[in-house]
Amino acid sequence: MKLYDTAPAPSPRRVRMFIAEKGIDIPVVQVDLRGGEHLKTEFMKLNPWCTVPVLELDDGTCISEAIACCRYLEAAFPEPPLMGVSPEEQGIIAMWEHRVEWDGFIAGSEVLRNTAAGMSGRGLTGSKGYEQIPELALRGKQRIQKLYEMLDQRFGESEYLAGPDFTVADITCLIAVDFARRQKLEIPDDCANVKRWHQQISQRPSAKV
Amino acid sequence: MKLYDTAPAPSPRRVRMFIAEKGIDIPVVQVDLRGGEHLKTEFMKLNPWCTVPVLELDDGTCISEAIACCRYLEAAFPEPPLMGVSPEEQGIIAMWEHRVEWDGFIAGSEVLRNTAAGMSGRGLTGSKGYEQIPELALRGKQRIQKLYEMLDQRFGESEYLAGPDFTVADITCLIAVDFARRQKLEIPDDCANVKRWHQQISQRPSAKV
Repeated sequence: MKLYDTAPAPSPRRVRMFIAEKGIDIPVVQVDLRGGEHLKTEFMKLNPWCTVPVLELDDGTCISEAIACCRYLEAAFPEPPLMGVSPEEQGIIAMWEHRVEWDGFIAGSEVLRNTAAGMSGRGLTGSKGYEQIPELALRGKQRIQKLYEMLDQRFGESEYLAGPDFTVADITCLIAVDFARRQKLEIPDDCANVKRWHQQISQRPSAKV
Repeated sequence: MKLYDTAPAPSPRRVRMFIAEKGIDIPVVQVDLRGGEHLKTEFMKLNPWCTVPVLELDDGTCISEAIACCRYLEAAFPEPPLMGVSPEEQGIIAMWEHRVEWDGFIAGSEVLRNTAAGMSGRGLTGSKGYEQIPELALRGKQRIQKLYEMLDQRFGESEYLAGPDFTVADITCLIAVDFARRQKLEIPDDCANVKRWHQQISQRPSAKV
């Protein structure tokens, strides 16, 4: 098995952190996104959607989309569980994971891809180019502010995002928050609960990989 | 257990179809989205993200986000499996489900919410209003065309979206395609494989619920 990864990109970091929490070791192949390696025929055979991460299994099966890589790994390496055990846990974790992916991760992408000069013509991932939409970047910033508010309420009542245990929802949320912070959308000073949680999760060894 | 639903909306249809495929019976409560019931305090106690579907369990636990409702139901009612059994199946199904949610469902929402007069100030779900961005609707249409191309290739090599069996990925894909068709983004004539698959899936009794 190997992981196609791009070190600075937020999506593959989700899978690296998940792997580190599982305590397993998977060789990594770096994909040069800046050089357009993900848009070349060879990479598109692995993932026609042209994104990292991709998990290539020993039989050549390729799994892309960060949450799908995590789903495979959770089933193949169940301990420690990061996606819940009981039906209720599984549902609640999937709910929070999906919320922060959409309102954090996707919103952060809307900001980056619609403002960065290097992303001109790359408003979305994939082989088809899309022009930047400046209003979408502004909307993305508003979404991140709203998410911080919602998260502050949540972390006022729960130690981790999906309940009393650390889960994949915390991984997605940490990386969404760090992605926003890289774009100068810092955790607001009045969101003390988010700051507490962010500091706590950032100290895990898996947050450094 | 009960399901908070809005009959014409695409997201709760994903959960209704999933429930029908499981052969279970869950009472339904209609939420009046047009009347703004989802933005009122009472509903926001169930789901502060103000969206349907919401699955309310007998102990009052609420699970929202369509894929999270499915995840709960899959674990609580494993037969027939709709999200895979082996780690590989689970990963591949999650990958396709996520791809069509993003490039079909979200793209369809971009078209609807940024064009429909009734969606003015409602560019995104949730309690915070967002103005419409006409360019985003245009981009959404391009995304749907690209998705049809990608799907046509896939359905040329696979009976169902994620492999030889019907899964939740087909549910999300069917409803994404039907959502696009309601917005006059019909399956293109040169996408015969998508048409074959769409006709086949639409004949399932669960597609009518």
